[in-house]
Amino acid sequence: MTEHTPIRVAVIGAGIVGASVIEQLAAHAADLQSRVGRPIELVGVGVRDASKSRPGINPALVTTDVVGLASRDDVDIVIELMGGTTDAADVVRAALARGASVVTANKALIAAEGVALHKLADNSGADLYYEGAVAGAIPLLRPLRESFVGDHITKVLGIVNGTTNFILTQMTDENLSYAEALAQAQALGYAEADPTADVSGQDSAAKAIILARLAFHADIDVSRVSVEGIENVSIQDIEAAKAMGFAIKLLAVAELTPDEAGVVVRVHPTLIPADHPLASVRGPFNAVFVSARAAGDVMFYGRGAGGNPTASAVVGDLVTVARNIASGSRGFSVTPYADLATRELGEGRTSYYVNVQVADEPGVLATVATAFADNGVSIQVVRQDGAADNASLVLRTHIATDAALSRTVETLRSLPAVRSIVGVMRVEG
Amino acid sequence: MTEHTPIRVAVIGAGIVGASVIEQLAAHAADLQSRVGRPIELVGVGVRDASKSRPGINPALVTTDVVGLASRDDVDIVIELMGGTTDAADVVRAALARGASVVTANKALIAAEGVALHKLADNSGADLYYEGAVAGAIPLLRPLRESFVGDHITKVLGIVNGTTNFILTQMTDENLSYAEALAQAQALGYAEADPTADVSGQDSAAKAIILARLAFHADIDVSRVSVEGIENVSIQDIEAAKAMGFAIKLLAVAELTPDEAGVVVRVHPTLIPADHPLASVRGPFNAVFVSARAAGDVMFYGRGAGGNPTASAVVGDLVTVARNIASGSRGFSVTPYADLATRELGEGRTSYYVNVQVADEPGVLATVATAFADNGVSIQVVRQDGAADNASLVLRTHIATDAALSRTVETLRSLPAVRSIVGVMRVEG
Repeated sequence: MTEHTPIRVAVIGAGIVGASVIEQLAAHAADLQSRVGRPIELVGVGVRDASKSRPGINPALVTTDVVGLASRDDVDIVIELMGGTTDAADVVRAALARGASVVTANKALIAAEGVALHKLADNSGADLYYEGAVAGAIPLLRPLRESFVGDHITKVLGIVNGTTNFILTQMTDENLSYAEALAQAQALGYAEADPTADVSGQDSAAKAIILARLAFHADIDVSRVSVEGIENVSIQDIEAAKAMGFAIKLLAVAELTPDEAGVVVRVHPTLIPADHPLASVRGPFNAVFVSARAAGDVMFYGRGAGGNPTASAVVGDLVTVARNIASGSRGFSVTPYADLATRELGEGRTSYYVNVQVADEPGVLATVATAFADNGVSIQVVRQDGAADNASLVLRTHIATDAALSRTVETLRSLPAVRSIVGVMRVEG
Repeated sequence: MTEHTPIRVAVIGAGIVGASVIEQLAAHAADLQSRVGRPIELVGVGVRDASKSRPGINPALVTTDVVGLASRDDVDIVIELMGGTTDAADVVRAALARGASVVTANKALIAAEGVALHKLADNSGADLYYEGAVAGAIPLLRPLRESFVGDHITKVLGIVNGTTNFILTQMTDENLSYAEALAQAQALGYAEADPTADVSGQDSAAKAIILARLAFHADIDVSRVSVEGIENVSIQDIEAAKAMGFAIKLLAVAELTPDEAGVVVRVHPTLIPADHPLASVRGPFNAVFVSARAAGDVMFYGRGAGGNPTASAVVGDLVTVARNIASGSRGFSVTPYADLATRELGEGRTSYYVNVQVADEPGVLATVATAFADNGVSIQVVRQDGAADNASLVLRTHIATDAALSRTVETLRSLPAVRSIVGVMRVEG
C-alpha cells in the first residue's frame, strides 16, 4: 500500500446527487488526492435502470446489482445515494458488515436504523458518515459529532425542511392560502407532486431524530417523537402571529427535559419572535440553532437541499473517510452512551399561542382566564378583537408543560362561551 | 498503553479561558473519557504569577516555567492560552518540535506564524488546532478544514470582532457618535481601555488571515492584507447607509480574484443590504459567510468571544487531538498547497458608496458623473440632497476594481465643485 494505491469508491444511486458527486470526483481529482494522501478511484456505479444514458459515466462501471457492488472486496468506500429504506438498507449493511466504510445522504434510513448501523460499523471497524442527510451542505452533523464534545448541548432548534419553509414564507409575505402556496411550491419544483412527506412534518422528524441522537448521545424512541405538519396552518394564524410580532415556522426541536434525564423530540408549526435569527430564514433555506452550556447559542445557515449542496457534503464526508483509511484510523463513533429516555411531548416545556372565537358577552375573558388558571397555566399576553358574534381572544401563555397546555385547550373546547378554537400553536425563542 | 493510560495535558495560561478549560476538564471528566477512549489528566498549569490564588487548581501543578512545562516528556498535549506572540510562540514551538500536539486560541500567533507552526507539526507528527482563535465557540475552522474539502470556496465574508460590531450597532440603533459608542462599549466591558487592536481592524485582520489560509489552502502574505478600522465611521455614513437600505459592518473579507490565481484579504467598514443575514448580526455576536461553488452560501453565527465559549472550542479541539493520540493518527494537516498569490487590495473587485459635499450649482452632477466615467466606474444609484452651500451627493457604484474606485475618489478630491468627501465605503452582498 503506497501513496499511489488508490482508494476505491462505489457510488450507488446515480440520480441528481449521485451524478453531481461523480462529476466532483472527476473535476477535483488532483485536489482530493492531495487532501487524502492517496488517489480516489471510482470503481463502480450502482443504478436501478442500466439502459438509461448517463453522460460522463463509464458504462463499464455501471451495474444494477447494487448489493453485489456493495459486497465487492475491492470496494473500500460505498457512497449510498439511492434513498428509501429497503434496498438502501441492504446496500449499507452489506458494506458495513465486511468493514467497508459508508457515506450516505439517506435521512430516512439513518433515522430508522442509525443506531444499529453504527453498531455494525463499530464491530467491523468501518466509518459511517451522513452530513448530506440533514440540511444539505451546511456543516452541522460534524460539529455536533466533534466540535461540541467538550460542551453540554441542551437544545437543538431548526428549520430543516425547505419545502415547508417556502410555503410558510409565501403565506406570510404574499398572503397566500396554504393551498395556493403549496401549488406555487409545486410549480417551482420546491414541492413534489405528492408533498405528504414534507408538509406532514415526516421529513423534518427524520432529521430531528438524527440531530437528537448526535446532540445528546442517546438512542431515540422513534414512536415517542411527536410530529405535526403545516397542513392546518391558516391565514388567520399567520396574521395573528404577525400582529403579536411573531413569525410561524415549522421547527424540529430536540431538547433535554429540565431533570436532564430525558429528551423530547418534536416537530410542529411554531411561533418565533420576528427578531429571532430563525425568523428571517426564508424560502428554501435551512437553519439550525444549537444551545450549549458553554458555547451559548450557535446557528448554522444555508441551502437545505439540492444536488450540488448535498453532493458537496457527501464529498466532504468521503474525504474524511478516505483519510481515515489512508491513516489506518477511524472517525468519531456515535455511541448512544447517554442514559436518556425519550419522553412524550407532554413532558416538554413550552408556551402556547391560542386563538379562540368567543361569544361577545360580559365575563368571557374571566371564564377563559379561569380555564388557564385551573390547569396551572399562566397567561402572558391577551388581546381581544372584534365584537358581537365575531369576537376573538388571542392569548400567549408563559412556559408550562405541554400536557398542562393541552389540557387547557381541552377545557376551552368544553366552554359554552368558546365558539371555536381558531388556532393553537407552540411558541419558541 | 491501555484504555486506562491517561492522556496528559498541560494548560499554559490560567486567565479567564484557561480557568474555564480547567473547570470543564474536571466537570466533564467521565464524558470526555468515554469520547476519547482514555482518561484526560491535567499534569501542569503554566502561569505568569505563581503567587496568585487560583481556586480549583492544585497548587502543586502550577509553574511559571512555561517553556519548561511545554518541553516535559510526560506532557502529551499543550493547551496554550497565554496570548501574545513572544512567550506563547516559544511554548508552542517547544511542544510541536518534540511531537506534542498543541491546542491554542491565540489568533495573533497563528496569523503571524501559522504556516511555520503547521510545518513544524507536520515534521514531528503532532496536531495543531485553534478553533477558539476565530469566532469563539462557533465551529468554523473545523468545517473549513474538513467539510468543504470536496468543494471550492470562492469567498469568506465575516463579522469576526464583537467590540466593533457592538459599537456600530449602538451608533445605528441609538444614534450615538463613534466616541459615545466606544465609551459605552468600554463601560460594559466589550472594549478594552486601549481599544486600538479592535477598532483599528487589526484583530479582524488576524482572523481574516487564518480564515483565508484555511479556505484557500494558500500562504497569505501578511504585508499585502489591507486593514481599515472603524475610527472614521461617522453618523453621516450610518444615516446615508440607512437611507439607502444598508447597514454598516466591519467585515473581514477573503476572496479569490476573478482569474482564480490570487487571493485578496481585506478588512474595512462595509455597507451591506439591510436584508442580508449579516446585517442582522447585532451587538457582540459574530457571523461568517462562506461561499462555495457546490455548497452555495453557508453562514455560521454565534457568540464571538468570552471565556466559556472560547473554552468550549478549546475542549472540542482537545478531544479531537486526544482521540488522534489514542488511535495513533493525526488530524487534517493544513498545507498551503494551492499556488495562490496574495494580491493587493486594488485588484479586489467591489462596489463603492461615496458621499460628497458639493457646490449647489448647475452641472455639478454631470461633473461628478464624468469623474466616475473617466475612471471606468459605472454609477448604480445617485441621490442629491440639500441645497445652497450644503448640497450633497450620495452615490453607489457598480462593481469595479478597487484601484479604479480609489482613482475615482482621487479625481473627485481634485474637483473644485467638490467641497469635501464626507464618506467612502466599500459595499458587499
